[in-house]
Amino acid sequence: MSKTQITAEPGMPLIIITREFDAPRELVFRAFTDPELLVQWLGPRDLTMTVDRYDVRDGGRWRYLHADAHGNAFGFHGVFHGDPSPDVIVQTFEFEGVPGHVKLDTTTLEQRGGATLVRTVSAFTSPADRDAMIASGMERGVRDSDERLEELLAKRRADEPEPA
Amino acid sequence: MSKTQITAEPGMPLIIITREFDAPRELVFRAFTDPELLVQWLGPRDLTMTVDRYDVRDGGRWRYLHADAHGNAFGFHGVFHGDPSPDVIVQTFEFEGVPGHVKLDTTTLEQRGGATLVRTVSAFTSPADRDAMIASGMERGVRDSDERLEELLAKRRADEPEPA
Repeated sequence: MSKTQITAEPGMPLIIITREFDAPRELVFRAFTDPELLVQWLGPRDLTMTVDRYDVRDGGRWRYLHADAHGNAFGFHGVFHGDPSPDVIVQTFEFEGVPGHVKLDTTTLEQRGGATLVRTVSAFTSPADRDAMIASGMERGVRDSDERLEELLAKRRADEPEPA
Repeated sequence: MSKTQITAEPGMPLIIITREFDAPRELVFRAFTDPELLVQWLGPRDLTMTVDRYDVRDGGRWRYLHADAHGNAFGFHGVFHGDPSPDVIVQTFEFEGVPGHVKLDTTTLEQRGGATLVRTVSAFTSPADRDAMIASGMERGVRDSDERLEELLAKRRADEPEPA
C-alpha cells in the first residue's frame, strides 16, 4: 500500500496529492460522494464532521462542518462543476474561516488492477493562497483522512460479498 | 482610459487580466451578469454569442456558444461559486472543445471615482493548461471583449439619466 504523496513546488499555486487505495474504483467513488461514508473519513481524527448539504450533481452545492471537542466548528463549502463520476470529480472549495479564497479541486480515480489511484490537483488563485493552506496544517488533515479512508475501505470490502 | 493588461508569468498556471472602465461599478456588474448585455460584448467581434443558460446564483450553471459565419459553434460552460455580487464573481470555466480542462475565474470590481477597475484571475490546474489557453488565441478575444464592453458601457451611460 503506497502512502500519501503531497507535491507543492515552491512559488506555485498548486498542490498535488496522490495515494493508491486497495479497493475498486466504484467503492472509492462512493466513499467520496455518499455523505454517510464521507463523515467517517474526511478530516483530522480529532474532529467530528457533519454534512449540512451534499448535492452531488452539476451545480450542486456542498457544505460541511468539522467540530472539535470544545465546540469550535469550522465550515467549508463549494459547488460541483459537471456531474461527479468515477472518472473525475471537479469542485470548488472555500474555508469559511478565511472567506474569499476559493480553490478548484480536480480528483481523478484510476483503476489499477484491484486498487485505485486517487489524484487530486488543487488550483489556487495565488501562491500566497496556496502557502496559507499549507501553513494551516493541511498536511495532517490529508494524512489522517487518507488513513481513515483506507480503514473504511478495508472494512467495507470485508463487509461486502466478492463479485461472483 | 487604460488598456487591457494581461499578465502570464512563464511556467505559472495563472493569467491575470486588468482593465479600468469609465462606468460605475453597478453598471459594469450588470454587463457581466445580464445575458442581454453579455451577448453584446463577450468574445471576438467576428463571432455571434448566444446564451443557453445563465443562472446567476450560488451553484447556478451557465452555458453559452460562440458561432462563426460558417456555422461552427464553440461551447463554454461553468458554475458560479457563491452568489455573484458587485464585489466579486467566482465561476468555473470549461471550453467544450477541450473537455476536462477546467479553470477557476475570480473577477473583482473596484470602484475608482466614476470608473471601475475589473481584475480577473484565472487559475488553471497546470502550467500546460494555462499555455494551451494562451495558444488558443485567447488574447484577441480578451482585447475585443474589453473594447466592445467599453463601447457598450459608453452607450448605456449616454442612454441612462444621470442620478439627480
